[in-house]
Amino acid sequence: MDNAYIIDTLFALFAMTLIIFMVPKFAMLEAGLVRTKNVTSVLTVNIMIYVIASTAFILIGYDLAFGGSNFTSFSPWAFMMFQMAFVGKAINIMSGGVGERAKLFPLTLFTIFMGAFIYPIVVNVNWGSDWLQDTIFDLHMVDLAGSTVIHSTGGWALLAAILILGPRKGRYNKGNIHVIPASNIPLVVLGAMLLWIGWFGFNGGSVGTIATKEAADSVAKTIFNTNTAGLLGALSAGIVIYIRYRLFDITMILNGALGGLVAVTAGPHLYTTIDAMAVGAIGGILVVFAVPMFDKIKIDDPVGALSVHLVNGIWGTLAVGIFAADPSQGITLFEQFKGVVSVGVFVFVVSFSIIYVINLIIKFRASDEEQLRGLDVSECGVESYPEFKTSI
Amino acid sequence: MDNAYIIDTLFALFAMTLIIFMVPKFAMLEAGLVRTKNVTSVLTVNIMIYVIASTAFILIGYDLAFGGSNFTSFSPWAFMMFQMAFVGKAINIMSGGVGERAKLFPLTLFTIFMGAFIYPIVVNVNWGSDWLQDTIFDLHMVDLAGSTVIHSTGGWALLAAILILGPRKGRYNKGNIHVIPASNIPLVVLGAMLLWIGWFGFNGGSVGTIATKEAADSVAKTIFNTNTAGLLGALSAGIVIYIRYRLFDITMILNGALGGLVAVTAGPHLYTTIDAMAVGAIGGILVVFAVPMFDKIKIDDPVGALSVHLVNGIWGTLAVGIFAADPSQGITLFEQFKGVVSVGVFVFVVSFSIIYVINLIIKFRASDEEQLRGLDVSECGVESYPEFKTSI
Amino acid sequence: MDNAYIIDTLFALFAMTLIIFMVPKFAMLEAGLVRTKNVTSVLTVNIMIYVIASTAFILIGYDLAFGGSNFTSFSPWAFMMFQMAFVGKAINIMSGGVGERAKLFPLTLFTIFMGAFIYPIVVNVNWGSDWLQDTIFDLHMVDLAGSTVIHSTGGWALLAAILILGPRKGRYNKGNIHVIPASNIPLVVLGAMLLWIGWFGFNGGSVGTIATKEAADSVAKTIFNTNTAGLLGALSAGIVIYIRYRLFDITMILNGALGGLVAVTAGPHLYTTIDAMAVGAIGGILVVFAVPMFDKIKIDDPVGALSVHLVNGIWGTLAVGIFAADPSQGITLFEQFKGVVSVGVFVFVVSFSIIYVINLIIKFRASDEEQLRGLDVSECGVESYPEFKTSI
Repeated sequence: MDNAYIIDTLFALFAMTLIIFMVPKFAMLEAGLVRTKNVTSVLTVNIMIYVIASTAFILIGYDLAFGGSNFTSFSPWAFMMFQMAFVGKAINIMSGGVGERAKLFPLTLFTIFMGAFIYPIVVNVNWGSDWLQDTIFDLHMVDLAGSTVIHSTGGWALLAAILILGPRKGRYNKGNIHVIPASNIPLVVLGAMLLWIGWFGFNGGSVGTIATKEAADSVAKTIFNTNTAGLLGALSAGIVIYIRYRLFDITMILNGALGGLVAVTAGPHLYTTIDAMAVGAIGGILVVFAVPMFDKIKIDDPVGALSVHLVNGIWGTLAVGIFAADPSQGITLFEQFKGVVSVGVFVFVVSFSIIYVINLIIKFRASDEEQLRGLDVSECGVESYPEFKTSI
Repeated sequence: MDNAYIIDTLFALFAMTLIIFMVPKFAMLEAGLVRTKNVTSVLTVNIMIYVIASTAFILIGYDLAFGGSNFTSFSPWAFMMFQMAFVGKAINIMSGGVGERAKLFPLTLFTIFMGAFIYPIVVNVNWGSDWLQDTIFDLHMVDLAGSTVIHSTGGWALLAAILILGPRKGRYNKGNIHVIPASNIPLVVLGAMLLWIGWFGFNGGSVGTIATKEAADSVAKTIFNTNTAGLLGALSAGIVIYIRYRLFDITMILNGALGGLVAVTAGPHLYTTIDAMAVGAIGGILVVFAVPMFDKIKIDDPVGALSVHLVNGIWGTLAVGIFAADPSQGITLFEQFKGVVSVGVFVFVVSFSIIYVINLIIKFRASDEEQLRGLDVSECGVESYPEFKTSI
Repeated sequence: MDNAYIIDTLFALFAMTLIIFMVPKFAMLEAGLVRTKNVTSVLTVNIMIYVIASTAFILIGYDLAFGGSNFTSFSPWAFMMFQMAFVGKAINIMSGGVGERAKLFPLTLFTIFMGAFIYPIVVNVNWGSDWLQDTIFDLHMVDLAGSTVIHSTGGWALLAAILILGPRKGRYNKGNIHVIPASNIPLVVLGAMLLWIGWFGFNGGSVGTIATKEAADSVAKTIFNTNTAGLLGALSAGIVIYIRYRLFDITMILNGALGGLVAVTAGPHLYTTIDAMAVGAIGGILVVFAVPMFDKIKIDDPVGALSVHLVNGIWGTLAVGIFAADPSQGITLFEQFKGVVSVGVFVFVVSFSIIYVINLIIKFRASDEEQLRGLDVSECGVESYPEFKTSI
């Protein structure tokens, strides 16, 4: 008894540490993908989100999500911190996609709402004490580590924000799409690969216990399948891109890997190796086709967050109903679909409303001139690489 | 019995790994904060310190600190390596603050003294076998993971070094303070955030055991409070800066986080969540006011190490006597104060004397011309970014 | 019984995570060491190798290495993933040394052969089910974590590749050696230091179990000795370089550390602290002398991989027969030597043949013009730092 308590606490601390490693790695990925004039601003947003969303979750969100019940068989401090490590992720997804044009103060306000209310409510009905069950929601989808609860939640909030904020100045000009290349590829690779590893903690830790033989197998299988889906997402994205352009496009390969990882996240404990390969490979391909598709409809997303997190969050949740359907356990494509739609409608409508209201009070979008100079100067007063001569 | 031995060994190895991760992260933080012409030199110092201080500690310091007693209930190899992981930190604090002007060979000499003698003596009287107890020292302060033993120790050595070495060439000119911006913000963020995470190993591991239910709770609470103080340090620093300048200054936010982390380090196992928030928030505010204060008195510290480590090392140690005073356990503000002063006087006097003598024999300070060209060329023969065009 | 299963699964997952951290770190090290025009290409190769070699190993190599026997007393998923984490390393060693001139598509083909066949066969006869024992091989060397199985295996494949591909354009001109400096020292330091830490997982995890008191001691001792050899490798390389040039050459210090780490890898569980110091120190010195030696014979290796991995892989394997010889256990210098030679001949001949054949079908070497422009443009279509003004 005590032994399980101890081992699960140690395991939760290990998993939580891997997840919090994702904070600087998300920051590096996004800093590498944007232009040098917005690098400090993007980094600041990432750190600010970790700080504010975590504080809001500790003070308000945690009780909203898990209040009234006992959700852990190990140290409550470790459980609370493990859950706290998740909250910033959904908001990071959103902040990345509005990078290079969203102002920091209104983003900060939205972060408080997201960390204290929106995300905790989504957690409550899916993983938590479910005090909303008998009122609005009646969800029974399987979503082990958050294809929907985290990734498409972040994605829907991002979509709402992009619709309100519009594209970056000069991105779509008279029918042409102005391609803006990533400014620092080593940072992109560093960030993406360590997000990948952080996922082991995310998905493995979400199994909740490692303290029986069966649980240990389930954790190891979950991590193995998670990694395998990442491998196949990278592979499928890389192959499609190579066939089309005869080039090895590392940003697309890495987005493919992340797409596979998002997709597997709903059910890595249920899949065979082949299932995980299929789910990941489809995830990688979806990213390759979603990126230009969003550009075609002028949805400007500098880091590809919608393609990685929203599209694959949806795909991954549905995939459980396809690859691991088990009606005797209540696992059906219909329940998965219902979960995707319910969470999607809730998050999109609430996020849109909040961002809309914030935008009425404080201008959410940086002015054209501020975008031209870069947000580092106007928002942060700190240039990212002041000694280096750059062309932009 | 054996089970506790095994789990605590695994836990110590996990904690030690997190701490050694801080070596490259300290290096990245400092490399990002200095000018490009001194980046290689700063990196080299950080690696050199890990190598030399660790070797000196293994060969001499460990016996000085822990000799004659049995301090561990788990694998002695794991305990020794966990303790070894600490030693370089105190010296990194010192080396960062004399960056851009201290020469490497004399720094190396001082590192040997610090790793073999000064730091181990401080450890001995606070955490170790205490063979000095009946002679000079009689300390009973609570300092779980080193607000005093590591952070203010490093800070006092730094203050001694700065007084002898003087400010960087051109930093204070005819009453003006010449502001030198950080050269690479992504490195600053990467370094600072991963230091933050390394702290989980530092403070969590210092609880010493995870192998009972109570110990598991204590470790998890320690890590939770550590993180919470970091959150509030960042938040308070960020808010103060924003109110004053209407800017999101990421280097100040991160230094605020580090200040909160240093401050909580003496007593994270004793605090409530609210205590940890208060200790961290005050820590962040102290950093914001200490940085310009040191500049005003022409104490030139390129990375803000005095503000983060010395000021908050003192504050954090005293905070235990305020927030967690328990005279029945001998925890009083007086004992904490006595510890701060005793260690401070010892470290400052000894460090000052050693640096003074080294400086008589070998010039410790790089010449004005060497500083102008940068230490990378004169000391290392390796430029940090040779292909990039820089303005300085 | 179950408790050992659980703890060893957790331990394997911890060790595996540290090893997979080495993927981005190898990438950072190599990206820092090459010229900016080849940075994206080197990063892409590293990620591509992790993706393809791991997939090949999961689908084919694992059965070839471990098929037909039960090698684990804990979760098979965790064991398989731990072993999978190793496979890319041998190929990374090879890809780094042919950087700035090897094309990506033929490298991809070789990666499949290496991950599916060559490396698994070497594993099979040394660590695995050994179905080749009664036919060709009869090896009994001690090689805990792969001084030979991984490091010299990668080194021999690299030597074969360099002999076929030749040096980079312009590297050796009319008897002069054109020195090409590393383009980004912070990346070099970040990569090398985190490889160092990854080694704790590599060597510690290779002990195979932590679930008895003796095993816990052995794991902790292995990690302690591993780190100590790295310290002494850095120290000895640094001292030799300083004596010769009066400079602190960080790339040589780090390569010395890595040399010491490679060298200790065959027997860290068998050494005393002094043994580990000696093995590591000699490893560091070997690197310092091997680097110019390879240049003298016009073997062009941009990252020093032959000096670090081949030379020290051999040295480290032989060192077990010198420092830990125990004929009663069958540990002799002769058996170690036989292992080094057998694996070396097998890997070199097979790799040479495969690379030779690939090179007949698809040009393996980038044209002079492609090398001049850099592989980033011709192979990846993605520049590494497009906004920065560079001199090359």
